[in-house]
Amino acid sequence: MDYPILSNIKSPEDVKNLNDAEIKSLCTEIRDCIITTVSKNGGHLASNLGSVELTVALHRAFSSPEDAIIFDVGHQCYTHKLLTGRFEKFSTIRTEGGISGFMRPDESEHDPFITGHSSNSISAAYGIYKAKRLSGEKGTAVAVIGDGAMTGGMAYEALNNAGSKRSNFIVVLNDNKMSISRNVGALARSLTKMRNKPKYHHFKFAFGRFLLKIPFIGNKMYNLIFKIKENIKGIVYKRNIFSAMGFNYLGPVDGHDVAAMESLFKIAEGYTRPSLVHVITTKGKGYSYAESSPKNYHGVSSFDIGEGAAQTNAVNFSSVAGDTLCELAKTDDKICVITAAMAEGTGVSNFAETYKNRFFDVGIAEQHAVTFAAGLAKSGMKPFFAVYSSFLQRGYDQIIHDAATGNFPVRLLVDRAGIVGEDGETHQGLFDVSYLSSVPNINIYSPSNYKELRYRIMYSAETDKITAVRYPRGAEKECDEFDYKADFCLLKGSSDKLIITYGRLFGDACEAKRITDINILKLNKIYPFSEKLIDVAKDFKEIHFFEESVKSGGIAEHFAAELLQSGYSGKYNIHAVDNCFVKAAKVSSSLKKFGLDSEAMVGVAGFET
Amino acid sequence: MDYPILSNIKSPEDVKNLNDAEIKSLCTEIRDCIITTVSKNGGHLASNLGSVELTVALHRAFSSPEDAIIFDVGHQCYTHKLLTGRFEKFSTIRTEGGISGFMRPDESEHDPFITGHSSNSISAAYGIYKAKRLSGEKGTAVAVIGDGAMTGGMAYEALNNAGSKRSNFIVVLNDNKMSISRNVGALARSLTKMRNKPKYHHFKFAFGRFLLKIPFIGNKMYNLIFKIKENIKGIVYKRNIFSAMGFNYLGPVDGHDVAAMESLFKIAEGYTRPSLVHVITTKGKGYSYAESSPKNYHGVSSFDIGEGAAQTNAVNFSSVAGDTLCELAKTDDKICVITAAMAEGTGVSNFAETYKNRFFDVGIAEQHAVTFAAGLAKSGMKPFFAVYSSFLQRGYDQIIHDAATGNFPVRLLVDRAGIVGEDGETHQGLFDVSYLSSVPNINIYSPSNYKELRYRIMYSAETDKITAVRYPRGAEKECDEFDYKADFCLLKGSSDKLIITYGRLFGDACEAKRITDINILKLNKIYPFSEKLIDVAKDFKEIHFFEESVKSGGIAEHFAAELLQSGYSGKYNIHAVDNCFVKAAKVSSSLKKFGLDSEAMVGVAGFET
Repeated sequence: MDYPILSNIKSPEDVKNLNDAEIKSLCTEIRDCIITTVSKNGGHLASNLGSVELTVALHRAFSSPEDAIIFDVGHQCYTHKLLTGRFEKFSTIRTEGGISGFMRPDESEHDPFITGHSSNSISAAYGIYKAKRLSGEKGTAVAVIGDGAMTGGMAYEALNNAGSKRSNFIVVLNDNKMSISRNVGALARSLTKMRNKPKYHHFKFAFGRFLLKIPFIGNKMYNLIFKIKENIKGIVYKRNIFSAMGFNYLGPVDGHDVAAMESLFKIAEGYTRPSLVHVITTKGKGYSYAESSPKNYHGVSSFDIGEGAAQTNAVNFSSVAGDTLCELAKTDDKICVITAAMAEGTGVSNFAETYKNRFFDVGIAEQHAVTFAAGLAKSGMKPFFAVYSSFLQRGYDQIIHDAATGNFPVRLLVDRAGIVGEDGETHQGLFDVSYLSSVPNINIYSPSNYKELRYRIMYSAETDKITAVRYPRGAEKECDEFDYKADFCLLKGSSDKLIITYGRLFGDACEAKRITDINILKLNKIYPFSEKLIDVAKDFKEIHFFEESVKSGGIAEHFAAELLQSGYSGKYNIHAVDNCFVKAAKVSSSLKKFGLDSEAMVGVAGFET
Repeated sequence: MDYPILSNIKSPEDVKNLNDAEIKSLCTEIRDCIITTVSKNGGHLASNLGSVELTVALHRAFSSPEDAIIFDVGHQCYTHKLLTGRFEKFSTIRTEGGISGFMRPDESEHDPFITGHSSNSISAAYGIYKAKRLSGEKGTAVAVIGDGAMTGGMAYEALNNAGSKRSNFIVVLNDNKMSISRNVGALARSLTKMRNKPKYHHFKFAFGRFLLKIPFIGNKMYNLIFKIKENIKGIVYKRNIFSAMGFNYLGPVDGHDVAAMESLFKIAEGYTRPSLVHVITTKGKGYSYAESSPKNYHGVSSFDIGEGAAQTNAVNFSSVAGDTLCELAKTDDKICVITAAMAEGTGVSNFAETYKNRFFDVGIAEQHAVTFAAGLAKSGMKPFFAVYSSFLQRGYDQIIHDAATGNFPVRLLVDRAGIVGEDGETHQGLFDVSYLSSVPNINIYSPSNYKELRYRIMYSAETDKITAVRYPRGAEKECDEFDYKADFCLLKGSSDKLIITYGRLFGDACEAKRITDINILKLNKIYPFSEKLIDVAKDFKEIHFFEESVKSGGIAEHFAAELLQSGYSGKYNIHAVDNCFVKAAKVSSSLKKFGLDSEAMVGVAGFET
């Protein structure tokens, strides 16, 4: 396909000049382009196919970049990228040096804000909106938020703030009836009810469209008529959670009808109070495989378009964690598992099916997840919260305040710890070592292979301490034999240099050792560490600490402080990620770039490779 | 007053045996005891006076500790403490070694969870509730949450989770029409509407009470009648945010009518879906000064009961911050100030009154506050978010993900940094140095006196970088002259030992210097620091780093790592708070206990005091 219309869209203004037939063709071209590209590069598919018409309608109703449009979560921004001057570069999406799979302010003036973590769009958009009003600038700001993202507490905080003020601020709820997998919670049930009561709104919408076509006074007349109507309580217009939050509720509207949405957005802009436009979309729309099984097409690797994406049952750290939890639960009825809308990603789908009673998908709600787990632990259960490292940042206060002060043994399974690859800076698991090690009473482990992971999860179930077991995305690396039950172990070599490391990088260290016979001190329990560990390290004249973490607050710094205080006077070098964000690239490529691979380890041993 | 009834309440079961007249007297005694004690020890007054009858009703309807009752925020738990065996110890509240001003699991089996930070009670209570059901234990769990705490996103996450499941879980909304000061946001407006429509509920309640008195079948009949009634949509029973979240909404009920509340709690327990009981209380009830000016009696120091608490206009770090912001705003219309329901505490009330347009109280919503600020900053405003150090923990992810990745210059004014005193472990500002210094692109300052604070706030307004300016609770200490505009400065002494410090402890170091003439390296910009700083420090054979922070991830550790890597081989000692929580005590007492005062500094200089 050669995309005759899409290739001529140089800026969103061009979208406004198309007629109905061209719009239809444009949407077909966009879908084809997204499917083709994702089938090669991998990426987020189903959500992007669902939001094609929505994005086209947004760019017709609003004028980016004067109007800031923020997609939440940002991975549904592919159509937006295609319509805002990035068609030519689109084939580079999610590759090193290419365009990002998320919104990125430094990539385009059309990407006003970064939205890799869910539920932040309303806060950001409202900030931009208020700034425009305060400084007298033109334009508005629109948050486009999924029904999954709407379960995050931050979204509610923002609605509560924005809903109390007079403005024409707009939130678009992109309701595809699921977040990543089937949406859960009371909000989802409320949305289902709203979806099923569209009659009044269809009337309102059709009549509203007619009114708005009347020049000059149409807008005002619309407001007058419908405001009065809404004041006749209990007749047709239903109160719901959004109207309770001070928002003018508009919808539901068909999210694949560009003209309908466009009109409704214009109507919303004419109000003097904030509006929420409820748009119903179909995840995976236009690609039969994705439409019938959207959760399998949420995030995909490259695949054959004709045959669909293969469902891999690959073994990886996540699947081993999930299997171990199932095994534990078989004989221990205290084992519970919690996820924040990430059952598939964290490998706990099997647990969810087998132990329904003891499985809790709480929505995109990491704060609640941690404290709910603390409540379970307080009352004698053994809760495991399986969560991505970067998303757990949301639960930092709860780990300190709710779990650690009372010493309630919450078990954190910190998945995607370290470099994660193509999802880029917002998804890197580079902070957990730093923020978790600041928490009193916590014990942090970082297994290097499946055997060690299995052991540590089993161990966590038995201990009455707060534990965090952190492990990387993907598969284990080959490791030499080591005592995985100890807190640390020394693999002796013949040099007087020492590499200290943990987690995935131990595999690299083993590889380096095969070449250089360097000494390796492997940490199993990475924090806190014992004095004995310092004694072992002190025997070496030169120490290189490699860790897949930010340097500031990492284990290498904690270790340096102890070493220095103990009187160590040898050479000490920290190899970590220092004061920067790590962009999208293959994991191996990033590790190499930051000097965290076996080659770098061989290098410090004094060998040339 | 000698408390004839209260002094005989040894456990909550005793409350159940009192008749109506005794209950009334008990409440009078409780109020007197609270007023008397708080007038001596200081503490939270208005909220506790408002929740006397509510707490009595809870202990009559439920059976603690079998039923877990969690007050949110926990500072409204004074009546609860008096009724659960702590009457004798009540005079020690908020003193070193005495009982805590908050709920503390290690203090009593009647305190199931710690709730020093707002909005966590529903999550914790639901965890405890589920654990009881899973393990077949008796009892229930009840979250008692203020209308202010209900603005926190965590509460919404928990409602969304709990509201979707069948259970008889109970949330009690203690609506006193304000959080700490006047409540803000759309939720507050919704609550006002609910409060004004109590007729149906009064009928329902009175009729319900009658029904429930019928033995055996009353409960079922009640359910039958009112469930049908609720299904007749749009007639009397109004839908609201809580019913949208899957909760059975009961109320509003008079929060000073013990019998009415008791019945409603029993009714709620009989349901098979979760209930929210809306209780209306009057903050400050029973003490005229507090009732007429509740925000001045939220947290108070000791005062004369007859004359009321004096409104001090004392100068402290918070007031200086507030004044500086006002001064800046006079000539710079980009200056905005954001608070998360803490305008008084952070000293920005004057700003709020003078610059209404540019002041945003977003509710107890630190997550939203940070990202909203990032949105403002993205669009050219200069937002300052004034927030307590321990509460900013809630915004950690947003600082990284929303402010730092895009490098949007949010200005954080981190108040109550360091030891805070009588509020105890949940309020200590001991983590901010550690978690903030893990964030790329951030610049952290820690002024030691008002002059330096003023300068740094002015400086933050001018820079286009993300800044955190952190300062302690209370007044400045006397400091020697120093170059407050530099990143650091060396105050030379005659010894070969060096003290490195920053913030409040610089005052202590100056005091120590007067006795010992030790060298002081004072950090103004505490992170990141320059290589030049390492060069200066390296000249000394013995370094003692004093900081009012957790050790793990603190500046002393970052500094140690740099020193060690630079080849330093002298003595290095870290003086900080290591892997523990700091309990309630006077600030000076805690500083002494952790070896962070001038005496400890004199000690390391080799002097005896």
